[in-house]
Amino acid sequence: MQHLQATLEHEIPLTVALGLRVDSYRDGCLVLAAPLAPNINHKHTAFAGSLNAVVTLAGWSIAWLLLAEAGVQGQIVIQDSEIQYRHPVTTDWTARCRVPEAATTRRWLTLLHRKGRARLDLQAEIWDTTQSCVTFHGRYVATSAIWTAASD
Amino acid sequence: MQHLQATLEHEIPLTVALGLRVDSYRDGCLVLAAPLAPNINHKHTAFAGSLNAVVTLAGWSIAWLLLAEAGVQGQIVIQDSEIQYRHPVTTDWTARCRVPEAATTRRWLTLLHRKGRARLDLQAEIWDTTQSCVTFHGRYVATSAIWTAASD
Repeated sequence: MQHLQATLEHEIPLTVALGLRVDSYRDGCLVLAAPLAPNINHKHTAFAGSLNAVVTLAGWSIAWLLLAEAGVQGQIVIQDSEIQYRHPVTTDWTARCRVPEAATTRRWLTLLHRKGRARLDLQAEIWDTTQSCVTFHGRYVATSAIWTAASD
Repeated sequence: MQHLQATLEHEIPLTVALGLRVDSYRDGCLVLAAPLAPNINHKHTAFAGSLNAVVTLAGWSIAWLLLAEAGVQGQIVIQDSEIQYRHPVTTDWTARCRVPEAATTRRWLTLLHRKGRARLDLQAEIWDTTQSCVTFHGRYVATSAIWTAASD
């Protein structure tokens, strides 16, 4: 998890302003944590832009972890997403994203190997200390470094 | 526009880290500007979370301006949104949001006056120096201060 934390801080400097911290990755569930204070808004709840940024990174991090576990070098970008802000976030909070079913991950990696590019759909949530407050659905695209170099 | 800039900085401190600046509001189009440097990612393009945060605020600001112009005191929150990251943003960039048709704004303000709560759908875009890179659709909910005080 230290590698993921260092990667996020190095590659996306705004994560420092967000106070983002990689909390845990257990049983296929990644938890990113963020404090309320630097992300607060006029209603004394977490700013929607901060919530979206961290939950987007939770999905990105799951794709990054899956590539790392498979020993695949590649890059990941988000293509599009939808988000529902269902309850205001009034405490320090976490973004939680699970790895997909094993068969989905296998298909994704196979397609990435064959085509050099493959899309992964991920669901994630924001929780405050008591409940799920935000639901998120993002589509991420991975490109294989080897294929990118060959086709660019 | 100075009032909007001060409101954003005061009420959402993360806007300072984003480098957000209220650029202009002319002919019904609000332009928020942000630099690439503090919002950069691993691909040397603008981080999706920063793009989402600023375009979300462009919509919020249009709703805020419409309330101010109508002399209505109220609060605005975002309910849900969708975003498509169509092209990478490789330069300093702007988020642009237009006021709705006059009839839509009238219906929104009438409903807010009658019910104390009304939803406004807004489209917005992110532009780099040459093209539209991101499209966004957000649904915002305004609540009237008077009604909120009465019903809470």
